[in-house]
Amino acid sequence: MRPFLAHPFDDDKLKEECGVFGVIGVAEAANFVALGMHALQHRGQEAGGIVSYDPQEGFNSVRRFGYVRDNFTKAGVMETLPGALAIGHVRYSTAGSKGHTAIRDVQPFFGEFAMGGCAIAHNGNLTNAASLRRDLIERGAIFQSSSDSECIIHLMARSIQKSIPERMKDALRAVEGAFSVIAMTRTKLIGVRDPLGVRPLVLGKLGDGAYALSSETCGLDIIGAEFVREIDPGEMVVIADGKVDSSRPFAPAKARFCIFEHVYFSRPDSILGGRSVYETRRQIGVELAKESPVEADLVCPVPDSGTPAAIGYSQESGIPYAMGIIRNQYMGRTFIEPTEQIRNMGVRLKLNVNRALVKGKRVILVDDSVVRGTTSRKVKDMILEAGAAEVHFRIASPPTAWPCFYGVDTPEREKLLAATMSEDEMREWIGVDSLKFISLDGLYRAVGEAGGRNAKTPQYCDACFSGEYPVAPSDQIAKGFAMKAAE
Amino acid sequence: MRPFLAHPFDDDKLKEECGVFGVIGVAEAANFVALGMHALQHRGQEAGGIVSYDPQEGFNSVRRFGYVRDNFTKAGVMETLPGALAIGHVRYSTAGSKGHTAIRDVQPFFGEFAMGGCAIAHNGNLTNAASLRRDLIERGAIFQSSSDSECIIHLMARSIQKSIPERMKDALRAVEGAFSVIAMTRTKLIGVRDPLGVRPLVLGKLGDGAYALSSETCGLDIIGAEFVREIDPGEMVVIADGKVDSSRPFAPAKARFCIFEHVYFSRPDSILGGRSVYETRRQIGVELAKESPVEADLVCPVPDSGTPAAIGYSQESGIPYAMGIIRNQYMGRTFIEPTEQIRNMGVRLKLNVNRALVKGKRVILVDDSVVRGTTSRKVKDMILEAGAAEVHFRIASPPTAWPCFYGVDTPEREKLLAATMSEDEMREWIGVDSLKFISLDGLYRAVGEAGGRNAKTPQYCDACFSGEYPVAPSDQIAKGFAMKAAE
Amino acid sequence: MRPFLAHPFDDDKLKEECGVFGVIGVAEAANFVALGMHALQHRGQEAGGIVSYDPQEGFNSVRRFGYVRDNFTKAGVMETLPGALAIGHVRYSTAGSKGHTAIRDVQPFFGEFAMGGCAIAHNGNLTNAASLRRDLIERGAIFQSSSDSECIIHLMARSIQKSIPERMKDALRAVEGAFSVIAMTRTKLIGVRDPLGVRPLVLGKLGDGAYALSSETCGLDIIGAEFVREIDPGEMVVIADGKVDSSRPFAPAKARFCIFEHVYFSRPDSILGGRSVYETRRQIGVELAKESPVEADLVCPVPDSGTPAAIGYSQESGIPYAMGIIRNQYMGRTFIEPTEQIRNMGVRLKLNVNRALVKGKRVILVDDSVVRGTTSRKVKDMILEAGAAEVHFRIASPPTAWPCFYGVDTPEREKLLAATMSEDEMREWIGVDSLKFISLDGLYRAVGEAGGRNAKTPQYCDACFSGEYPVAPSDQIAKGFAMKAAE
Amino acid sequence: MRPFLAHPFDDDKLKEECGVFGVIGVAEAANFVALGMHALQHRGQEAGGIVSYDPQEGFNSVRRFGYVRDNFTKAGVMETLPGALAIGHVRYSTAGSKGHTAIRDVQPFFGEFAMGGCAIAHNGNLTNAASLRRDLIERGAIFQSSSDSECIIHLMARSIQKSIPERMKDALRAVEGAFSVIAMTRTKLIGVRDPLGVRPLVLGKLGDGAYALSSETCGLDIIGAEFVREIDPGEMVVIADGKVDSSRPFAPAKARFCIFEHVYFSRPDSILGGRSVYETRRQIGVELAKESPVEADLVCPVPDSGTPAAIGYSQESGIPYAMGIIRNQYMGRTFIEPTEQIRNMGVRLKLNVNRALVKGKRVILVDDSVVRGTTSRKVKDMILEAGAAEVHFRIASPPTAWPCFYGVDTPEREKLLAATMSEDEMREWIGVDSLKFISLDGLYRAVGEAGGRNAKTPQYCDACFSGEYPVAPSDQIAKGFAMKAAE
Repeated sequence: MRPFLAHPFDDDKLKEECGVFGVIGVAEAANFVALGMHALQHRGQEAGGIVSYDPQEGFNSVRRFGYVRDNFTKAGVMETLPGALAIGHVRYSTAGSKGHTAIRDVQPFFGEFAMGGCAIAHNGNLTNAASLRRDLIERGAIFQSSSDSECIIHLMARSIQKSIPERMKDALRAVEGAFSVIAMTRTKLIGVRDPLGVRPLVLGKLGDGAYALSSETCGLDIIGAEFVREIDPGEMVVIADGKVDSSRPFAPAKARFCIFEHVYFSRPDSILGGRSVYETRRQIGVELAKESPVEADLVCPVPDSGTPAAIGYSQESGIPYAMGIIRNQYMGRTFIEPTEQIRNMGVRLKLNVNRALVKGKRVILVDDSVVRGTTSRKVKDMILEAGAAEVHFRIASPPTAWPCFYGVDTPEREKLLAATMSEDEMREWIGVDSLKFISLDGLYRAVGEAGGRNAKTPQYCDACFSGEYPVAPSDQIAKGFAMKAAE
Repeated sequence: MRPFLAHPFDDDKLKEECGVFGVIGVAEAANFVALGMHALQHRGQEAGGIVSYDPQEGFNSVRRFGYVRDNFTKAGVMETLPGALAIGHVRYSTAGSKGHTAIRDVQPFFGEFAMGGCAIAHNGNLTNAASLRRDLIERGAIFQSSSDSECIIHLMARSIQKSIPERMKDALRAVEGAFSVIAMTRTKLIGVRDPLGVRPLVLGKLGDGAYALSSETCGLDIIGAEFVREIDPGEMVVIADGKVDSSRPFAPAKARFCIFEHVYFSRPDSILGGRSVYETRRQIGVELAKESPVEADLVCPVPDSGTPAAIGYSQESGIPYAMGIIRNQYMGRTFIEPTEQIRNMGVRLKLNVNRALVKGKRVILVDDSVVRGTTSRKVKDMILEAGAAEVHFRIASPPTAWPCFYGVDTPEREKLLAATMSEDEMREWIGVDSLKFISLDGLYRAVGEAGGRNAKTPQYCDACFSGEYPVAPSDQIAKGFAMKAAE
Repeated sequence: MRPFLAHPFDDDKLKEECGVFGVIGVAEAANFVALGMHALQHRGQEAGGIVSYDPQEGFNSVRRFGYVRDNFTKAGVMETLPGALAIGHVRYSTAGSKGHTAIRDVQPFFGEFAMGGCAIAHNGNLTNAASLRRDLIERGAIFQSSSDSECIIHLMARSIQKSIPERMKDALRAVEGAFSVIAMTRTKLIGVRDPLGVRPLVLGKLGDGAYALSSETCGLDIIGAEFVREIDPGEMVVIADGKVDSSRPFAPAKARFCIFEHVYFSRPDSILGGRSVYETRRQIGVELAKESPVEADLVCPVPDSGTPAAIGYSQESGIPYAMGIIRNQYMGRTFIEPTEQIRNMGVRLKLNVNRALVKGKRVILVDDSVVRGTTSRKVKDMILEAGAAEVHFRIASPPTAWPCFYGVDTPEREKLLAATMSEDEMREWIGVDSLKFISLDGLYRAVGEAGGRNAKTPQYCDACFSGEYPVAPSDQIAKGFAMKAAE
Repeated sequence: MRPFLAHPFDDDKLKEECGVFGVIGVAEAANFVALGMHALQHRGQEAGGIVSYDPQEGFNSVRRFGYVRDNFTKAGVMETLPGALAIGHVRYSTAGSKGHTAIRDVQPFFGEFAMGGCAIAHNGNLTNAASLRRDLIERGAIFQSSSDSECIIHLMARSIQKSIPERMKDALRAVEGAFSVIAMTRTKLIGVRDPLGVRPLVLGKLGDGAYALSSETCGLDIIGAEFVREIDPGEMVVIADGKVDSSRPFAPAKARFCIFEHVYFSRPDSILGGRSVYETRRQIGVELAKESPVEADLVCPVPDSGTPAAIGYSQESGIPYAMGIIRNQYMGRTFIEPTEQIRNMGVRLKLNVNRALVKGKRVILVDDSVVRGTTSRKVKDMILEAGAAEVHFRIASPPTAWPCFYGVDTPEREKLLAATMSEDEMREWIGVDSLKFISLDGLYRAVGEAGGRNAKTPQYCDACFSGEYPVAPSDQIAKGFAMKAAE
């Protein structure tokens, strides 16, 4: 059923679930959307979809499993998506699906209203989707997908407002959770962020009167669009006829952007909150070297996500940076239905140790995070088997001890290593000479908060580290999830 | 016809044309061969093939366009390749084909002789294939491919020797050029290197009585085989019944290993001539920093092949290393038949500049080589457009001024930038503040020859830099290729 | 977009749009449904879908373009449709789609209600679907397809009834037109025919407590089910726990079964109204020979649909029956995107005249119907070119002068040859020596109405011949369709 | 591996193994070849290939598994086969392959000789191929396929003649068996029949200076070519520059055309030896009715191959002809990897009895042949289960008691029902009220030999009935095949 297996490492990373991209005002808009989605592919590799609108041809859509480069580049496909207005979505997997995705769960979703059609693409997760869905079904809604995002379309269909943007406001006021939503009507491109602004969304300008909305700035770069600004938390922009109208449909709230976007989700060449993601990650390495120094011969990243922090650690510590582990560049997607023997090779299919380099050396390995810890163990095995004298792990994020309910695919809490073990127990379980995580304050400093974390009113959403959820995960609580006890 | 376009950069790199891998003595040998080929995928991405032998099922083969991970991992395919003996081949494109490859050109090639079948896989190129082919056709041979390598099979078929290894010696004594050949009969795994040992070939041990042959040591690592030794230039090994027999079928000659394997072709985690490829490349950066220093703020690799030399340059110069250019990791294979608009995005599909990082900075870009120079210009454009103050190119190889005829896909000589321009003209054409190549002596020092290049009897084949061809390219000369004039 | 072109003849036949099939009470019910759909493939070749239910696995569905034999037979696909309850649908094209079908238009449709899921498959056409759809959208329904049949699901979703069968009654009382509907819940298989019983639907028994519903009896034969009886016009059966409950949810009405099912749509080995379809068609040939005799040497069918009537004509007239035209049996589906040259071969790709047989002969050609007349002209050209002395057409149905709005794909009225020409004008336009259609009374006699057609209260729906529509086609009238003037 | 299973009936029919078609002198010749192959598809459904030649583009070829209509009609494919000269081949399976075919066994075969390329397509089978192959391999030939036909190419490659037609004569004088061969060089279309003319081959004219060669006349009809004449047994025609040159390269011999081409292999609309195949088959039915009358109510063909003989039987006997068994027209190719349950439905997937028609009737079933008899039993079961009162089988060929070695796929002798049972034992085993085969003399009368079979010098090859092989099957005898004892 499912077109490909997860990456060998995928069960040991938190995974951003979606990226969204939209363009208005240029011929063959869908081509630009495909490029934007390609740049955002790291936010969702399982499937993607594009909806476009052309006055002659109406709304058209293509939704497919697999990579953007394979599905949305051929002339034969792209010709079926005409028009100067289009939106797209890449996804990993929805909260709703039971372990695998059907093509009907692939966004954008589309609804035909009395005043015309509307397509929406959603990055994030609605924390009250289960109860909304139950209510909507009782009132006669026919759901076509298992996605929480489809609630938005049904809420809009039942709104008594006359225009689609107003109906969208009605709908989004009824939902809870994290959402960066891009939508399109026959004439408008719409972008909205939830009041806390948990997920990113940026606005770009693409020549005269043409605009783009993208999850990250790297999506603007690929199409040559100029980065204008971030959409604010709680803001809705409606773009039509070359004009951008802004409104604030929600009650004011203090912003709580996802700090893990800085650590891992976003691409290193994107800019978040005015800061280079790469530079922030390098700075994490610097902080980590200050907090947790160790004598060693080499600093090696666990490729590719540990690289910027390893560079920072090396620069701060003076210990030489080296590529001790080489990644097989032909592993973009894992083997489909491999034989048993091939499956058992596990991590060796993807990584190889640079034996001649690490033999007899004391090695510091820098990784972005520890989730289940299974990969850390395998990497440690490889590097010791190649003859390293000592192995020291340095992790560019605090211990991940709580699941995320705002659009990230996390294991159940009991499967998070940090939920059940102390730092020292983790060190022993992984089997390394030392294991150190950056502190929460160190991480806040690296993202530019010189004073560290404000414990009363934290500047970011860091629930995966702190257990402090800025929006109550009501569906989860109804299913029995135990929140952190108040202290 | 052709299943995918070349990479955007592929016309601006020299490309190794093949990798070979074989295993004897383990159940489901084809699975191991598939893994070895996956590790050697960088040596040939266009197509691959495996032949296996099982006493019940005889010889079986599968040959396909595309990646190993897509073609040779599914249980349904691998079950058709039973047996404890198998060889495989990955290829880029043959010398013989007119710009595109037919499936009949995909190796291993197979011949049924009176004493049984034999499959061969060839890395390298035969420089007298055209005249051999002409002669063979006149004597009644029916060629099935346009590959030079098929001559070997026909020469073997006409040998009067009684055993397949002896027939192979007959055949290989008749050919000229570069060859690392792996072959198999019903009971034997055979490996041979040409007298100069231009292309690599290594022997590994995989438990009790089981052996592997591989183009590079990284192919042994992935299957957990122990690296035993390199096959010597001019050596043939015949492996059967757990024993390795060695012989020297050719007249003795001074070895001339390809120095470009160190610079670019081989994987950084392989070991060539007892040296870590990664460490050699880092050392090239060190030499380059000594030879061609410049004041700057950042040292950035052109990803991914410039990375080790950039690290070395940074370490020697003290200028910070930084990821100024980010590679899109979902570009393993280029878009198939993209729309015009998408094709025009060119290098932006693959690379993005880390704008926030390079803005206002003096940047040293380290790349492995300059072939046509087109990529260098595009990368310079991107980095200037992002606001860099100065751009200095440092190249980890000498100017590539001559084509290779020993198994590497090179443009015609007039398309090589260094064949028609001086270093300063190249600098101007590319449009950068400075451009420096490592010297030939510097390169020799980096590969361990402390005294540099021995001009009388060079230690390596460096024809692409020096124009001194260790084996006369006779087919090319017949077609009018002008050798370097004797000095 | 569209996966295959229409048959060369398809634009010159009326086409039944759908076949439905369902099974309850046997393991792997979906396999039986696939076989039933295969037997009903003549009722819809464009696409097909199956929904199954299993208590462990819930509802599953597969919907595909193409033939049942290609899509619904592989173990890998059928294993995804577990359970003892399944329904399926084959379709030609819906009234709603603009010339081509999207996969979202492929039935069965599925709705999740508060009391559980329900899948429905519909044969027929709703004549008030456009106005129903408009109303539903205004009340917040999100339509996923362009199919008229989806209205039924939305009407059910809005019903206040507690059980699914009762909601289905509510919904079907609101629709007008022709419908033979099969539906399934988690525990029930449901079948309903509209009050006039325009489309067929039969009940079969498949061993102990297991039942099947099928559009035609040939679907029961293929799975070895015993034909129990037809579902009555206006009847609903609900099958669960091995019991068949019958009810009559609609106001009583006089039945008006589609007479064209006897002429062409149904398979010759099916039984309709207690009569063999083959025998009825042969009897049409007998009546035709009585009504329109002619001196000739051979009676030849236009294969394959004219065969039974040609046999009857030959038997009644004493003129020998012969296969004067041979059908290429490898033309089940037409060439996909053929070259211009191949497309121009037209009818020759499908039919060839038996030249040696017809040369110099007076030939009677028997065909089932004349729609646009284009095929008749081409067949006449072929047979004259092969040297026939005379060509006489005999048509096994009256002139088709009116479109069908009850689930049949007919051209617009002005494209029906009989809508604009007299019989003699048609003879001249086609270019044959004589052309005769069976009379409406003759057709009624052939289906067993010894007294012919009852003009006051016709026994069948014969609107395509008579223009007398038993259900007013209200959507069509709203769009400007001119009904036959009252006499 | 194998792309589709055999038809449910395929193991119970003799199967012609190949059809050949060639065209010279028209633009886009490959399109005409594709049409001709489509018309000859009944002679080979497993795979097909086309080779074309264009002065600019050289020789091109496409070889594929599956139907012509699926592989050789798309513009994208046909554009790769340019030129005014092309040949094609459809195949069932070769004598050489072990139960399944590799793509390398798909013809035409191609050889590059010193004087240019040559492609050949072969209908028939070489009876000394095994010994020829052994000799050729010892002399250095590399075989690429398991096909007997490849010997012809290697024999040509070793000929000392200067021109390709002369080399072909050399080669064909060395082979034994049955062959109708079509070949092409850069300028010539060549056709040859073996001295006995076992397989058919006809010449057609396609306008000014353009010609076609085809296995049967139906291939000429589809492209609108005029039937000129049959190629004579032992004749070679070389067509170039609008001229047809004829020569007789072999020693004269009495012709022995395959009589089974009349019974079953050829299409009913083809003309063989000046006679309509349809009319011959009808006449077989007439002879059968004279030889083996029986009282009954209906004469029904086993579709589709029994139809003409059933018509003849009905006409001679006066018993009404009826379609008692209906064939599912969507079964052109059998289910791919069906589930167990679907596979077990067997014959019901393909045929259904017209229950209402046969119930209580005495039915004569007319079939073309009995091979293993398994189908006959299943058909009898179906018709009795539907309530027939009596079942009488009449077979339009004599008992098939001997395998064919001249290009027909026959079971081993012991699997032929008539090889081990008398007519009465067969009747009992099949389980019918009577079973009668046409006599060998009756068959000869039906094909126009008023005096029946000439026992001394039979006019046809009828080895499958008589065991008298006109060419000794030497490879088979070497493998132990026991010829019929001389009387």
